[in-house]
Amino acid sequence: MQPLAWDGARLRALDQTRLPHSEAWLGLDDAEAVAAAISCLAIRGAPMIGVAAAYAVAMDVAAEPGLGALERAADRLVAARPTAANLAWAVGRVRAAAAAAGPAAMAAAARSEAERIDAENTAATEAIAVGGADELRGARRILTHCNTGPLACGGRGTALGAIAELARRHRDVTVLACEARPLLQGARLTVWELGRLGLAHELLADAAAPGLIARGEVDAVVTGLDRAAANGDVANKVGTYGLALAAQAAGVPFVVAGPCSSIDPGTARGADIVIEERDADEVRTAAGALLTVPGTPCRNPAFDVTPAALVTALVTERGVARPVNAATVAALVR
Amino acid sequence: MQPLAWDGARLRALDQTRLPHSEAWLGLDDAEAVAAAISCLAIRGAPMIGVAAAYAVAMDVAAEPGLGALERAADRLVAARPTAANLAWAVGRVRAAAAAAGPAAMAAAARSEAERIDAENTAATEAIAVGGADELRGARRILTHCNTGPLACGGRGTALGAIAELARRHRDVTVLACEARPLLQGARLTVWELGRLGLAHELLADAAAPGLIARGEVDAVVTGLDRAAANGDVANKVGTYGLALAAQAAGVPFVVAGPCSSIDPGTARGADIVIEERDADEVRTAAGALLTVPGTPCRNPAFDVTPAALVTALVTERGVARPVNAATVAALVR
Repeated sequence: MQPLAWDGARLRALDQTRLPHSEAWLGLDDAEAVAAAISCLAIRGAPMIGVAAAYAVAMDVAAEPGLGALERAADRLVAARPTAANLAWAVGRVRAAAAAAGPAAMAAAARSEAERIDAENTAATEAIAVGGADELRGARRILTHCNTGPLACGGRGTALGAIAELARRHRDVTVLACEARPLLQGARLTVWELGRLGLAHELLADAAAPGLIARGEVDAVVTGLDRAAANGDVANKVGTYGLALAAQAAGVPFVVAGPCSSIDPGTARGADIVIEERDADEVRTAAGALLTVPGTPCRNPAFDVTPAALVTALVTERGVARPVNAATVAALVR
Repeated sequence: MQPLAWDGARLRALDQTRLPHSEAWLGLDDAEAVAAAISCLAIRGAPMIGVAAAYAVAMDVAAEPGLGALERAADRLVAARPTAANLAWAVGRVRAAAAAAGPAAMAAAARSEAERIDAENTAATEAIAVGGADELRGARRILTHCNTGPLACGGRGTALGAIAELARRHRDVTVLACEARPLLQGARLTVWELGRLGLAHELLADAAAPGLIARGEVDAVVTGLDRAAANGDVANKVGTYGLALAAQAAGVPFVVAGPCSSIDPGTARGADIVIEERDADEVRTAAGALLTVPGTPCRNPAFDVTPAALVTALVTERGVARPVNAATVAALVR
């Protein structure tokens, strides 16, 4: 199931806030609508918000060719979410291609560049699935966090694509899927995708993962990433850092998989990555049910930072950084 | 708010499954009813399930004085939940006192012993609150997990009692409370108790805690315990181990607080502690709302084990083990 459908002029998106209970599609005509869909996580996953934003710029420039519309669309989209690198990267590519083309050719140039980003991303997921499965070879019980399948990444997905490729090679793979509170992308989306893939899986509360890793019930941990800094520190879904600590303590590989568009050479280290803090109501509720005393103040960072030293390997479409450090990351994006 | 009310013959318990939305009391007349209330977490928290079980044995022996009723009640209660040490410890004390008294005096002996356990536990929480606040001195932003207030422990509570005592000594304490999925004892119970105590607090998803600790937003972590092994390894609410790893990595104190009745010299090390695995529906739902694909297989360990080496101090009513190891733990229960 691919989460975006582009007909050359207009974007449709599977509303990921409503899965797994309902498969509803959103029609999106302009950058404002796409930015809103990204902010509310109807479209989500670092690679997919990049692809969707690229199409969004193309739609606005098609409606009003000119640098004014181009800049407005770009600024609106980049402001939708701060942490994933892919969003600003994809918007930047379309902006540059459109600006270079001049007003008459701007719409066509923007559309072509967005379609190129989409196609490159799909191709990248194939390489990441294969490279990721190589990194995971021999593992049977694989723990993952949040959602990194086609819904998040297009194509085959990233970390989840690697797991699926591993399962294709040898059948006896079981996936331990963390639920990913507060918005439950693991419980809602990864479980749904694993069911469609026919892969054996078990869902768990996020807090249960470190203990299961310590008890020897996990052979490898694999996650996606939202942004890698130049030194190899990785921002990903909140909870990833705790998994990395537990994997290190247990001597279990901790693999991160994603496209090079998630690598940001302009951010020196993880501490420099802006971590989005989302609305308190996400913590106060689950699936619409109130969990706590009404009005309770909450912290709700959507991401955390895992130091490069805890990452066994960073798998991309251009190869694998192992160990993960400034030199090996630079080699991927040179 | 004390969660148990004993009138000398009959036990009433605040139904903790219904907090914070409803304050409902259960009338409990026998060991079977108390065991069921413990199994479904209407009565919970290692110290409180010990106290409740002690009264439960006393009720059954009052109804039918004799070794048969005594043994049946004891066996039923100990089987209710496997991990917390206090349950078998308290049942064992009442059983021994009743058996030693003989049939004619058995009921009175059992009741006296249960009341003694209750009173000792309440007194212990006072000492733990004071000793725990000493350990936390200087900390302003304190992270805790699950629920360790009066609801769980009676009296002033254990870890939460220490936080409240610290706040009494210097006003500017903020509590970061992990929600404690799947059953949300943090979101439901700790937040409710913190509100009643008038302490500033923020709720967070469990997975957010390690990242906040790494970012320097936490001065100390304090939790309760369900069982300490002879070597000082500690079983506590699932998720505790990940907090301990994050605290160690950040150089933040990780303090565990609870009564000596949670120390089990008969269990050599943490790996020997039986970890209760609870029903999958707890993971599939939150506050009654379905979170995932119906029927999804789940893992649901209710506890995990934190190695002694990660625990900065173990605070009990008989003093503090620091460092935590076989010798310092043995000194507490000698």
